[in-house]
Amino acid sequence: MNRASRPISDSYSETTHVVLPNDTNTLGNLFGGRLLQWLDISCAISAHRHCKRTVVTVAVNHVGFDRPIKLGDFVTIRSHVSRAFGSSMEVWSDVSVEDQVTGEKIPCNSAIYTFVAVDHAGRPMQVPEAEPTNDEERRRYDGALRRRQLRLILSNKMKPEEATELKKLFS
Amino acid sequence: MNRASRPISDSYSETTHVVLPNDTNTLGNLFGGRLLQWLDISCAISAHRHCKRTVVTVAVNHVGFDRPIKLGDFVTIRSHVSRAFGSSMEVWSDVSVEDQVTGEKIPCNSAIYTFVAVDHAGRPMQVPEAEPTNDEERRRYDGALRRRQLRLILSNKMKPEEATELKKLFS
Amino acid sequence: MNRASRPISDSYSETTHVVLPNDTNTLGNLFGGRLLQWLDISCAISAHRHCKRTVVTVAVNHVGFDRPIKLGDFVTIRSHVSRAFGSSMEVWSDVSVEDQVTGEKIPCNSAIYTFVAVDHAGRPMQVPEAEPTNDEERRRYDGALRRRQLRLILSNKMKPEEATELKKLFS
Amino acid sequence: MNRASRPISDSYSETTHVVLPNDTNTLGNLFGGRLLQWLDISCAISAHRHCKRTVVTVAVNHVGFDRPIKLGDFVTIRSHVSRAFGSSMEVWSDVSVEDQVTGEKIPCNSAIYTFVAVDHAGRPMQVPEAEPTNDEERRRYDGALRRRQLRLILSNKMKPEEATELKKLFS
Amino acid sequence: MNRASRPISDSYSETTHVVLPNDTNTLGNLFGGRLLQWLDISCAISAHRHCKRTVVTVAVNHVGFDRPIKLGDFVTIRSHVSRAFGSSMEVWSDVSVEDQVTGEKIPCNSAIYTFVAVDHAGRPMQVPEAEPTNDEERRRYDGALRRRQLRLILSNKMKPEEATELKKLFS
Amino acid sequence: MNRASRPISDSYSETTHVVLPNDTNTLGNLFGGRLLQWLDISCAISAHRHCKRTVVTVAVNHVGFDRPIKLGDFVTIRSHVSRAFGSSMEVWSDVSVEDQVTGEKIPCNSAIYTFVAVDHAGRPMQVPEAEPTNDEERRRYDGALRRRQLRLILSNKMKPEEATELKKLFS
Repeated sequence: MNRASRPISDSYSETTHVVLPNDTNTLGNLFGGRLLQWLDISCAISAHRHCKRTVVTVAVNHVGFDRPIKLGDFVTIRSHVSRAFGSSMEVWSDVSVEDQVTGEKIPCNSAIYTFVAVDHAGRPMQVPEAEPTNDEERRRYDGALRRRQLRLILSNKMKPEEATELKKLFS
Repeated sequence: MNRASRPISDSYSETTHVVLPNDTNTLGNLFGGRLLQWLDISCAISAHRHCKRTVVTVAVNHVGFDRPIKLGDFVTIRSHVSRAFGSSMEVWSDVSVEDQVTGEKIPCNSAIYTFVAVDHAGRPMQVPEAEPTNDEERRRYDGALRRRQLRLILSNKMKPEEATELKKLFS
Repeated sequence: MNRASRPISDSYSETTHVVLPNDTNTLGNLFGGRLLQWLDISCAISAHRHCKRTVVTVAVNHVGFDRPIKLGDFVTIRSHVSRAFGSSMEVWSDVSVEDQVTGEKIPCNSAIYTFVAVDHAGRPMQVPEAEPTNDEERRRYDGALRRRQLRLILSNKMKPEEATELKKLFS
Repeated sequence: MNRASRPISDSYSETTHVVLPNDTNTLGNLFGGRLLQWLDISCAISAHRHCKRTVVTVAVNHVGFDRPIKLGDFVTIRSHVSRAFGSSMEVWSDVSVEDQVTGEKIPCNSAIYTFVAVDHAGRPMQVPEAEPTNDEERRRYDGALRRRQLRLILSNKMKPEEATELKKLFS
Repeated sequence: MNRASRPISDSYSETTHVVLPNDTNTLGNLFGGRLLQWLDISCAISAHRHCKRTVVTVAVNHVGFDRPIKLGDFVTIRSHVSRAFGSSMEVWSDVSVEDQVTGEKIPCNSAIYTFVAVDHAGRPMQVPEAEPTNDEERRRYDGALRRRQLRLILSNKMKPEEATELKKLFS
Repeated sequence: MNRASRPISDSYSETTHVVLPNDTNTLGNLFGGRLLQWLDISCAISAHRHCKRTVVTVAVNHVGFDRPIKLGDFVTIRSHVSRAFGSSMEVWSDVSVEDQVTGEKIPCNSAIYTFVAVDHAGRPMQVPEAEPTNDEERRRYDGALRRRQLRLILSNKMKPEEATELKKLFS
């Protein structure tokens, strides 16, 4: 297969938000639904940077909310495509909060979304391969096939016995 | 264990939204991030109805976007707790769009979130068991343990070899 | 007259909102204007379910705010068409708040809106009759003619002496 | 009764909005719920200017939507208290749209809301009388008692036979 | 030059907002970005009233935030065109906050924006001259040429030595 | 004076937004007021990163809107402190739009804001000096004193004859 490929670093996107009263839940923390919205946009930017096409969300594969984010916090979302499969792209987001005194960025969430590239009529289009160039990128690239099989099983589009990559994990 | 239990039907919640221009992406369809926000609120209502406590989102386990939702569509989100584990609850949402002529509700997405019940200091609190009372509820209840193991593996909180329920799926 | 009719129950719509900081006034209660917006959407859904046409708000006939709704409350809005007149429909909404411990729904507002069905050029279109099938629906159906006369008088489209139904009330 | 009184003109408030895409319904016109929100704020300002107290909406008595308002239109809302009754105030709003060439303000809606003045604990407080000083103000002042009786009847707080002022209208 | 002229008073616009929780920063004061948005709309209305054309913001020349505006404050923005130059218009806004007891309007900010009139293809169009009719308007009219030279220097569209009017200020 | 200093690069912040229908004006371009809001947040992040204190906007010194930004565009805002003066900081923002095919970032706006660091009671606090470390940073650092004098003159806090730095520009 000689479809063009593109280094994963080309798809990096970064955004910093401030948590305003408008973004909080009744506990005064960042409302989960608002973070999901910010993640969706950040991942869409990465997916677009990888394929230069209109992209649409096809799945949220996993978002973990490990610690509450407070009113006034600076939230930085860094996303990148981790692997491409035909017309779809797995995108990772890492969410961190900035310590207000030291400026250190404390990791607090991560998220995995899947996007697909479409033409004007909404039909899927092939995207370039995504090429990992460091260890972290490679680890995520390697896990993407297993997560893809999981997603297809969860949406009833693949049978467990066909998920060859996933089976290896448990054998 | 004789912790109180509650029928799953007590947690049912239903909401209908109209897709306004404010909710659309650049293709004129419902923006993915907005749907994720609506789902988060709908699932939180179900989780609260089950446990009568403050609840916070701990994970989005899976959301599939199977077909675009258009400007002007009526979007109905129906959620219910599918299973409880100690202080956490798996919640399912089914999204449908209404045919504007026949009024028929066409299924178009489903979503799985995990919530946890907390006290005023944010510490996890036990919730009642969730009791399925029909076939659909029972199917989702039965799958919840496998999905929970998946979620814990994806957030590096469980090793694949410990995921006994999940391993059965592939053996 | 043999225009098709449709049971009122076909038009029922239900939506539950959580009051977030974004929805409050300076007293920390649900801001009246936000509730009016939620009511407008909920009533529009009912009007559409009755007539399967594009509908536009022509009047708010009455909204009573009987008790403040607090930050964090679950607000359920249930609407239904109460009567149809040619191209217009009177729609009732009942607003309740959920007791956070017992889950009981406590009534706290009701609202009456009027919608009209229009074609693509915005011209009014006939809608089916609305058929009450229980006592509550019948009571509201019966009062609708009087309220319609009131609305027409208030907008200077009817003279008091022509309001035959209304006059009976006071005789 | 010698409670202080205040001329109605002290309560005048004026606000001009531009209809942005964010404010439109699926027909590209100003969404009814948004206008209701703008009216609520404008009326609250007038009520506050009359009584210098915290005010809360107790009822929307009537809003007529006589003609659609378009994307890009300049919408001017002018409100004033029309009459005070103990702790409550009837407030009128007149909505006009500006002709984009001549600048002429074309009337297109009017609205009547009722507010009540409250202290910090939410208890009703007496407000000054409202004194009409021109013909238009006087006409609205005179009609206010009838509308108040209507509102009390509609919320089941008065029996039709007690509505002495209203009965005169139909006799 | 005999291009039509129009008195500055024709361009006056006035808007009153209430600061809701949705508009505040993490200190509970009006968020600067929200005020900038309100100012932009208010100035656009004045610019449009002067020229009766579509107008677009070309610059914010100066906004001073002299004192914090609190949650619950009534914020009145009064704008007017101060001078026209070919297709562009300088617009001034004065922001005041209302004393909740006396009703007195306390000045707290002022802002200067520049707008340009455009046709449907976005090409600049000539606008009428703006004619000052009182002292305050004349003072602002007189300073506008200097401020215009400043703006052109700041955007590298004029060299300091060409700014004849501005040089006078410092000589 | 030996107040601590901090390299300007410590204050860099970057954010990418997608222009959604919700952000557009009636021409379908990014609404000026929305961009001003995004700029305010981006500059506040840079100011905070420089001084690690609560910061409030005291002035918008200049924003130029050189070319319209379209629905669907990716807008990247990069900000940094350019110079500190006692408790105040001048902050620059550069806005660029991404070419959807080549990914090239095309400059389209720049903005200058002034922030001040405050303690919990809102009193100004000293901030570290800002140290330029490349040519671009040095150019902006050098111009900051002149712009500060301009700002003080525009808000009537300095007389033109005292603006020694500014006078040099015109001599």
